[in-house]
Amino acid sequence: MENNIEDYMLEIGKNAREASRVLANIGTEIKNKALRNMATRLILDSDKILAANQIDVAAAMEKGISEPLIDRLILTKKRILDMSNAIEVITNLKDPINDVIEMLHMPNNLQIGRMKIPLGVIGIIYESRPNVTADASALCLKAGNAVILRGGSDAINSNIEISNSLKAALVESGLPEATLQYVETANREAVDAMMKLKGYIDVLIPRGGASLINNIVKNSSVPVIETGVGNCHVYVDESADFNMAENIIINAKTQRPGVCNAMETLLVHENIASTFLPSLCQKLHSFSVELRGCEITKCIVSDVNLATEEDFETEFLDLILAIKVVPSIDAAIDHIYKYGTNHSEAIITNNYINSQRFLKEVDAAAVYVNASTRFTDGSEFGFGGEIGISTQKLHARGPMGVNELTTTKYIIYGEGQVR
Amino acid sequence: MENNIEDYMLEIGKNAREASRVLANIGTEIKNKALRNMATRLILDSDKILAANQIDVAAAMEKGISEPLIDRLILTKKRILDMSNAIEVITNLKDPINDVIEMLHMPNNLQIGRMKIPLGVIGIIYESRPNVTADASALCLKAGNAVILRGGSDAINSNIEISNSLKAALVESGLPEATLQYVETANREAVDAMMKLKGYIDVLIPRGGASLINNIVKNSSVPVIETGVGNCHVYVDESADFNMAENIIINAKTQRPGVCNAMETLLVHENIASTFLPSLCQKLHSFSVELRGCEITKCIVSDVNLATEEDFETEFLDLILAIKVVPSIDAAIDHIYKYGTNHSEAIITNNYINSQRFLKEVDAAAVYVNASTRFTDGSEFGFGGEIGISTQKLHARGPMGVNELTTTKYIIYGEGQVR
Repeated sequence: MENNIEDYMLEIGKNAREASRVLANIGTEIKNKALRNMATRLILDSDKILAANQIDVAAAMEKGISEPLIDRLILTKKRILDMSNAIEVITNLKDPINDVIEMLHMPNNLQIGRMKIPLGVIGIIYESRPNVTADASALCLKAGNAVILRGGSDAINSNIEISNSLKAALVESGLPEATLQYVETANREAVDAMMKLKGYIDVLIPRGGASLINNIVKNSSVPVIETGVGNCHVYVDESADFNMAENIIINAKTQRPGVCNAMETLLVHENIASTFLPSLCQKLHSFSVELRGCEITKCIVSDVNLATEEDFETEFLDLILAIKVVPSIDAAIDHIYKYGTNHSEAIITNNYINSQRFLKEVDAAAVYVNASTRFTDGSEFGFGGEIGISTQKLHARGPMGVNELTTTKYIIYGEGQVR
Repeated sequence: MENNIEDYMLEIGKNAREASRVLANIGTEIKNKALRNMATRLILDSDKILAANQIDVAAAMEKGISEPLIDRLILTKKRILDMSNAIEVITNLKDPINDVIEMLHMPNNLQIGRMKIPLGVIGIIYESRPNVTADASALCLKAGNAVILRGGSDAINSNIEISNSLKAALVESGLPEATLQYVETANREAVDAMMKLKGYIDVLIPRGGASLINNIVKNSSVPVIETGVGNCHVYVDESADFNMAENIIINAKTQRPGVCNAMETLLVHENIASTFLPSLCQKLHSFSVELRGCEITKCIVSDVNLATEEDFETEFLDLILAIKVVPSIDAAIDHIYKYGTNHSEAIITNNYINSQRFLKEVDAAAVYVNASTRFTDGSEFGFGGEIGISTQKLHARGPMGVNELTTTKYIIYGEGQVR
């Protein structure tokens, strides 16, 4: 297979295209039955999956891969149960396929509506976490799509075992085996070949680090939905409730600092900086957060490091926070425009006009008033999971669930109309 | 400028990005005032535009460009009035910006909604028709977007004069000049540079021939919305009303054969072929349509040519029709799956089950029951114009109007929620 990766990938593409035609016309009950079988099968196959995972973990340790990455890689009975439960949640979502939105009546008596249909074939290229294999497969199937999965080489044994388990459930349920295909090679040329499968793959979704994503955006002739970095801000307005602001900042920074919706920079209105910052910084220190403040911040709180320009540009993904005191909401919005990555931005305020201005003028996938940026997540938005968080503007923006894996077609009822 | 196209295009990209930030926060009334000024300005500047157009037309004739292409290029007082009127129609459309769809209440009391916002900067690369310059500018502005236009070299003088006229109206209305920028060079490197303006242009929309579109889809690092070819079919089912079927076929084939929503292949159920085809073919002959039929068609109607495999693959864009007799609706759907380009497909039937099957099982931007494929058009769908017809699945499918030039952001109202 390694000799002829392009042929191997083309075969996968053709199989997926064929399966997608079957899946587009399959009823909700059959899809749900298959999803339930997938959830059950994962539990039944736990031991096999855990054994495969141990091979991956041992290899990763030998390579000296970092603790957090190994933690993302490790599977346990509990984590397999979580994957199974996530599939159950997805099973119980409303099936959007064949829903018709806006059936309008035209002056010439045509009825024109938009019917939701599957995208077709979805390609997902992702890094270490093996649970993506199960989540993505379930979301794609719920929306009637075939999926081609290409996980990181670190998790290849785990991913193959999980996808074998899911495929067995699919076949048992009478669905095409190619509903789900896992690219069973660690060879990087497979990714290159995947990016050329225009006509077979309808959309590629890369999930992972910036270099993975940039490579795919730059080189793919298949349309790409970009999921990206989150340099997220919380702006504490003059009128903010200090208690609420502290809770939100501590949550957004410390609850899970390694994820894209964690906050990276705090902006504080100058009129409250000297009263608000000292107590906040003390608390953040107690959570082991390293603080890097602007000059004004340093004047107010002595034990912070001086922030550089680079700090305001950086997605730390760590217990580090940049702090800047700003003279107005306008300056806060300008700072976010300059440094933000259009992911998640929050204002803490009790001022009505400022809350509305922030919602309208800040351009990001999710803009918050008085809540933590950590809520930008498919599960929190009620999607039962997510296929990624889009930080671009085409097709989908923010957490992508089942609905974002559909497209539409116009359906038109006539009675003989001509132009 | 020709020496340094990349710098020139980068400057255009930067200007557009800046203008887009202003446009995103501008109210409907200001946008509408500017649109009305644009409509008026075109009329006032008619003589200048017509003079520029005469230069283009003379050059095209000298180059020996074909009659239909010259017809597309020529402007008249009437055509300028039509462009002006189209802008008026777009002015009167509902402004979608800042509309919020689905403001949902979550179990933790967060209110989560999706606000419609402009895409940002839209790049359009198109061929000869100069009216696109006005249509596209108006649609983009209505949705709060900046636009970068790159028309065909044949129409460069007309396009520059039209865009100058529109820009004067924009500036007069207090909008940034870079709301609309026309790429004032016929150098092809400008297109290459435009495809690299990721971060400045949010979406590129190519309109024109297959080679133009394929080049952009393949090489652009800016996301592309593909507008494409239409190999459109009409399937006449066993239960069709013959009269209705004839009217629709004649309309779909002959009313304007050179456009993408015109029909190219007729499929007829075998049980009616011998009664339906003779009279139809006679009528099509009287409209000067060249017929290319399958072997069964030839047995029924002697004076047709034999269709080749290639004929069924071809978008003739001309008074030529391929005809195939099929044994069932399944065979018709299979034929469309194999040869169709997912543009516009129609069934003529009086059978309820078949009408529903066709609507669900045929995958195309627009699927019709008992109406002409010619209706796939922004104006006919009530969009007041169109920026192109998307034949791909991401973001937009079918005619793209003001709504398709928007994206969304999630807005979240909280009261201090944390995870």
